[in-house]
Amino acid sequence: MDVLTAIFTRRSIRTFEERPVPEEMRETLLRAAMAAPSARNAQPWQFVVIDHRATLMEIAARFPNAQPARTAPLGILVCGDLSLELSKGYWVIDCAAATQNILLAAHGLGLGAVWTGVYPRENRVEGLREMLGIPEHVVPHSLVLIGYPAESPAQVDRFDAKRIHYNRW
Amino acid sequence: MDVLTAIFTRRSIRTFEERPVPEEMRETLLRAAMAAPSARNAQPWQFVVIDHRATLMEIAARFPNAQPARTAPLGILVCGDLSLELSKGYWVIDCAAATQNILLAAHGLGLGAVWTGVYPRENRVEGLREMLGIPEHVVPHSLVLIGYPAESPAQVDRFDAKRIHYNRW
Repeated sequence: MDVLTAIFTRRSIRTFEERPVPEEMRETLLRAAMAAPSARNAQPWQFVVIDHRATLMEIAARFPNAQPARTAPLGILVCGDLSLELSKGYWVIDCAAATQNILLAAHGLGLGAVWTGVYPRENRVEGLREMLGIPEHVVPHSLVLIGYPAESPAQVDRFDAKRIHYNRW
Repeated sequence: MDVLTAIFTRRSIRTFEERPVPEEMRETLLRAAMAAPSARNAQPWQFVVIDHRATLMEIAARFPNAQPARTAPLGILVCGDLSLELSKGYWVIDCAAATQNILLAAHGLGLGAVWTGVYPRENRVEGLREMLGIPEHVVPHSLVLIGYPAESPAQVDRFDAKRIHYNRW
């Protein structure tokens, strides 16, 4: 799939078929995440791959915004690793770039995905940290839920020319 | 260009040919940015398109990390609009997703780009705000410098299996 097509046709997918994400696709998604740019190339990220059904169900039960985990066969929790940071504060942005790469790669592979916000909501960050045994220097940032789409939302056009300013505000 | 190829072969480009970025490509880049996902679909972003040579040179002169503005024919300053935010704090992440879309779209179009960090560095945020007349409720987030590449950095593989954890840390 062309990169522009991928960017323009990607939608959030929240219900998934039961079949699992093949292992080689999973690796491609993680490779895509790690191909993201980062401030001073620090690559301040870590990933928790979640495919245990019980863990995904517990996530859905504990976090109201993570309902798609009920049917998703795969979750990737993108985390910031503060011990790897070179430019203070930029890990939040770097991890978002990695997350967007996962979403686009998933769409390109014929999978669907939804970005579930974690950071900076304290209860989500600390809840996932506790559940998954994540150490203090690592911060849960975003949970991507992934699988074969069981829905096909219509395309949208979010372009808004009023958001564009030229050379000055 | 295939989306996976775009993700894996994108590199930061810091020197550019003198020719301008065609207007239709510029619009495609902005469309790509606005196609990004955002928390509760708030789309809390604004964009300042910069193509005045004097403005780009002033940016390079004032901000040591923005040296590529010396040769870039185009800059897109991605900004967060706090008045549009629906989920507090997520604008930082939403704007990063929009920025990553610009980088990938540029690469897909045969352009090169570099992500210049702005937020959360106070002097960069306030310096650009003052220079470009950006109001208080809008926060300069990232400056993407764009043009036809005058360098072709070798590919890199940032994959690191040690960053992957399974079901628990």
